[in-house]
Amino acid sequence: MFSVNVSDTPPEQRILGLDPGLGTMGFGCILAGSAGLKPVDYGVISTPSQHSMPERLQTLHEDLSQLLRQLRPHQVGLEKLFFYKMGNTIAIAQARGVILLTLAQHHLLPVEFTPAQVKQSLTGYGRADKQAVQAAVARELNLPSLPRPDDAADALAIAITVWHHRFS
Amino acid sequence: MFSVNVSDTPPEQRILGLDPGLGTMGFGCILAGSAGLKPVDYGVISTPSQHSMPERLQTLHEDLSQLLRQLRPHQVGLEKLFFYKMGNTIAIAQARGVILLTLAQHHLLPVEFTPAQVKQSLTGYGRADKQAVQAAVARELNLPSLPRPDDAADALAIAITVWHHRFS
Repeated sequence: MFSVNVSDTPPEQRILGLDPGLGTMGFGCILAGSAGLKPVDYGVISTPSQHSMPERLQTLHEDLSQLLRQLRPHQVGLEKLFFYKMGNTIAIAQARGVILLTLAQHHLLPVEFTPAQVKQSLTGYGRADKQAVQAAVARELNLPSLPRPDDAADALAIAITVWHHRFS
Repeated sequence: MFSVNVSDTPPEQRILGLDPGLGTMGFGCILAGSAGLKPVDYGVISTPSQHSMPERLQTLHEDLSQLLRQLRPHQVGLEKLFFYKMGNTIAIAQARGVILLTLAQHHLLPVEFTPAQVKQSLTGYGRADKQAVQAAVARELNLPSLPRPDDAADALAIAITVWHHRFS
């Protein structure tokens, strides 16, 4: 005898959104299921600017590894990297390399979204401002106020975008 | 009673040069001491382009970790990263983040040099061509022919540059 899951209800899953950065990386984890979306945990991983680049990358690796062990996400969403401030791009890309490595070491392959895709997904408008996106995050997660800090709110928005795109 | 090392002779040391890359990273390890410079090992770490970025970063991390355990370098030299081909810079910077992390996990803080500094150090001319630099590498290490492949030769040149700058 064997059983088959014929339920139309998808299983609950934890989705982690990450807003990559070297000085401050936002993270936001949500629980998604038939009852809608709930916040699990959100905040930032910071590395001190007075430390050397290798030390900061090591802190990022250790703190993200610990976060993944705690949260045990089923899926991870990551903001896609574009060139913007030239001086900063190498630092962010180096941090991003460490983030991708850490996820791979936990058998997680992230889904990537552009900022415009996240805005579109949350507000229906790809050029929405930060305030509108944060208000949408608070609404979807039934938060009493806008999530803080900004990097954590961005990360929650990415996690929600992963959920919105689950059938695409 | 205690003893003090009053020898003018610096202790022998292994110096590892790395020419960072995602598809191909050159490495070159030399033994430096009073008897001059000797090659220890050189070659490349490659990651298959058909693999995903996270998989390639994981391969790079594992292979470099193994190399560091084998070679046990006292010092590491690394080529400084500049923007050049826009499309490639993010990939190289992500690989570089993983390289810096791996070195930090082995308690190694690399010395960094620009390509011009390496050329200057090897040939006395900061805009020397590849052939002239490789000939200088072969001469300094008493190699019977030019070291191959190019990425390994570049890495050996970086290791020799670390040695040349040891009192600076």
